[in-house]
Amino acid sequence: MLDPREFLREKREGRAHRPEALREFIAAFARGELPDYVVSAWLMAAFLNGLDETETDALTEALLHSGRMFDWSALGRPSADKHSTGGVGDKISLILAPLVAACDVLVPMVSGRGLGHTGGTLDKLESIPGFRTQLSPEGMRAQLDRIGLVMVGQGPDLAPADGRLYALRDVTATVERDYFIVPSIVSKKIAEGAGGIVYDVKCGNGAFMKSRETAGALARRLVRATRAQGRGAAAWVTDMSQPLGERVGNALEVREAVDTLRGGGPADVRALTLELAAGMLLLAGVEREPVAARTRAERALASGAAWEKWVALVTAQGGDPNSVEKPERLPQAPIVREVTASRPGVLAAVDAFALGELVVALGGGRRAIEDMVDPRVGLVVRRRIGDVCAAGETIAELHLASDEDGAVARARACFTLGDGPVAAPELILERVMADEAGAPTAGRSPARASRT
Amino acid sequence: MLDPREFLREKREGRAHRPEALREFIAAFARGELPDYVVSAWLMAAFLNGLDETETDALTEALLHSGRMFDWSALGRPSADKHSTGGVGDKISLILAPLVAACDVLVPMVSGRGLGHTGGTLDKLESIPGFRTQLSPEGMRAQLDRIGLVMVGQGPDLAPADGRLYALRDVTATVERDYFIVPSIVSKKIAEGAGGIVYDVKCGNGAFMKSRETAGALARRLVRATRAQGRGAAAWVTDMSQPLGERVGNALEVREAVDTLRGGGPADVRALTLELAAGMLLLAGVEREPVAARTRAERALASGAAWEKWVALVTAQGGDPNSVEKPERLPQAPIVREVTASRPGVLAAVDAFALGELVVALGGGRRAIEDMVDPRVGLVVRRRIGDVCAAGETIAELHLASDEDGAVARARACFTLGDGPVAAPELILERVMADEAGAPTAGRSPARASRT
Repeated sequence: MLDPREFLREKREGRAHRPEALREFIAAFARGELPDYVVSAWLMAAFLNGLDETETDALTEALLHSGRMFDWSALGRPSADKHSTGGVGDKISLILAPLVAACDVLVPMVSGRGLGHTGGTLDKLESIPGFRTQLSPEGMRAQLDRIGLVMVGQGPDLAPADGRLYALRDVTATVERDYFIVPSIVSKKIAEGAGGIVYDVKCGNGAFMKSRETAGALARRLVRATRAQGRGAAAWVTDMSQPLGERVGNALEVREAVDTLRGGGPADVRALTLELAAGMLLLAGVEREPVAARTRAERALASGAAWEKWVALVTAQGGDPNSVEKPERLPQAPIVREVTASRPGVLAAVDAFALGELVVALGGGRRAIEDMVDPRVGLVVRRRIGDVCAAGETIAELHLASDEDGAVARARACFTLGDGPVAAPELILERVMADEAGAPTAGRSPARASRT
Repeated sequence: MLDPREFLREKREGRAHRPEALREFIAAFARGELPDYVVSAWLMAAFLNGLDETETDALTEALLHSGRMFDWSALGRPSADKHSTGGVGDKISLILAPLVAACDVLVPMVSGRGLGHTGGTLDKLESIPGFRTQLSPEGMRAQLDRIGLVMVGQGPDLAPADGRLYALRDVTATVERDYFIVPSIVSKKIAEGAGGIVYDVKCGNGAFMKSRETAGALARRLVRATRAQGRGAAAWVTDMSQPLGERVGNALEVREAVDTLRGGGPADVRALTLELAAGMLLLAGVEREPVAARTRAERALASGAAWEKWVALVTAQGGDPNSVEKPERLPQAPIVREVTASRPGVLAAVDAFALGELVVALGGGRRAIEDMVDPRVGLVVRRRIGDVCAAGETIAELHLASDEDGAVARARACFTLGDGPVAAPELILERVMADEAGAPTAGRSPARASRT
């Protein structure tokens, strides 16, 4: 049996744990056999002294095996999923999931709720009247088989040790380490049963990762750790120096997703969706060449196939199809206020983090997981970095539940106008394909259908 | 209010806490308002990133103020106490306390029980039939006033946060750091109300500190931290490369204390007692010169005044004075086995730690705090390092409750015989007087009577 004190001493002294010992430690914690005070001391020791790749993989496995693991291989089609590390205005999943499903790839997407300055896919979906985000495993299987797509919340039995460990990390200031973050993300995505996983690592002031270096490192570690569990993986590092698209807020983002699925939408939302969709088609093995994958994704969008899949999804999960067919039926804020430029100039910088925080303050997000979210509120960003603004011109619109003192001034302070020309930031900063992130280990998933 | 997460982040990043913040953190823990998992994460962060002197003092104060603080100043006499870090055969307190009390210094001595390979003063005293080690505060005060001496166990209200913090350190592998050890020792000694404190830091294979460097550093830190609380302090680093004196085991050590109090006893026990007694008389201010202090201590021993104080102590705390007047009435083991030299030679080394462990195995000590102790068992060491032994000569005697297989062989293995001449180890390795350990802060104790 494992001696917890010896285990703590090992990490305290900077030695590596044997993988079996680390798996046993986490398994004992998951079974409630290890007190929180032992695990929190270990978290701090590991935070300070590190976990190597072998330990990170062992932690991933331990979290994964603490709960149920879905396996969709009996459905006889390849599957893929996507995870974003979270940003402001990131509604890509709403468009991407039906688009990929429309290309004959199963998308068993399990998402989270918003917390802090970033939104969550579940909150966005729930702004559609009637939409249910909890399905039974049998319901998921039936819907996946029928329409190839589910978008649901994480049940309590998917990597439950991750939730308990995260709660301890949160209260003990041991959150921000790749070797904790990677197992937390990867264990949940693996448990969902997708054969290939695409990661969108956001980078910039509106993201958790502020620098190219830290975002790139996380992207490579996610791909490596996912492949160590026998699944296909690829990652993108993408810009979050300003909100993605124009709309931020739950119903506002559903509306932008609807616009994009109908062939419109902002250029960046459309471009990033097609980029990630092509990646998922390649990982799933339904296309073998990047150009073909891209073309297939574009066609699914242009043909209306993605839109039809979206309507099928909304209908299957209890949502009112009218509210997406006619998006003016989505919840709308009663008050709209304009944020105008106080001087002429070029938009030089956007404080995307502060805009995300503002939406939370307006009621559109959560400070604590039990907070209620108002689907109506948010903002529409009318200017992007590099755009020229005249004095008095509208930079953004605030959608408010009630007239909030100071909200307009707070929003205005998030936009910095300069004089010289400013280059628009690149949307896609880095691509991490499987073979750049280390050799794969032997496949374990019967659903695996990676091309590599 | 203190944000525990910010507090953890501060230590995690190697920054120093503000003293008020550290005091508030420990006070909240003592009041049961901070969960153990937060405190254990902090212990690990502090174990790895350190606490500076200011933080160590703040921790000491926080532990001290978690409970009752005795104040004997109303008794109108100076007071002093002694703490040993623990060694094998260390019965000095039994002789030292009555000796110093016989020199008109109050000795309010609070001691502990044995745990692991070292014995505890309370266990030794309780081998005297009838001896009570728990007195009420009123009983302590009355006895101190009448005979100038109490020897008791720590009540639950003396630095209670230290006990809870130690329990967490024990289970989270965060014990061995001076900046945790010093506040734990000093807070308890300060709470006992003595005006001056002498520390005996044991050094060698039978002690917790194995090297001169670590023992010397601990000695200096104990003196500095005690003076920071406004009390006089001095420390000695003394040899523990072999048992102190000849007898190890509870009743056997009382017998050796009795011999020494009557003017006999082993040379090292007598020498160390007089050395520490002189230090306590100087700290208490009843003598101003080392030679005078030494002479006064020697006279109190030679005159029988120390012995009379011992009998008064035993009688006052319910012990049978006959059992110390006629020490053959102390509990005695039914079986004595000799450990003989297997070859001729010079005693080159003793494994004092293993001898201490052997006494525990024989029933004379504790592995867990709730274990019962057999006062009769132990050993008598007949040869010291540097002594010449003939083959077959007795090196030690084992005092056994029953015939233990292998005990003689296990004891023999603790004595290493060599060929060349071996120097006897120095008993006193280092003296740390107050002025070598940093400037004192302003006095706070009304009972303070330090000469420095």
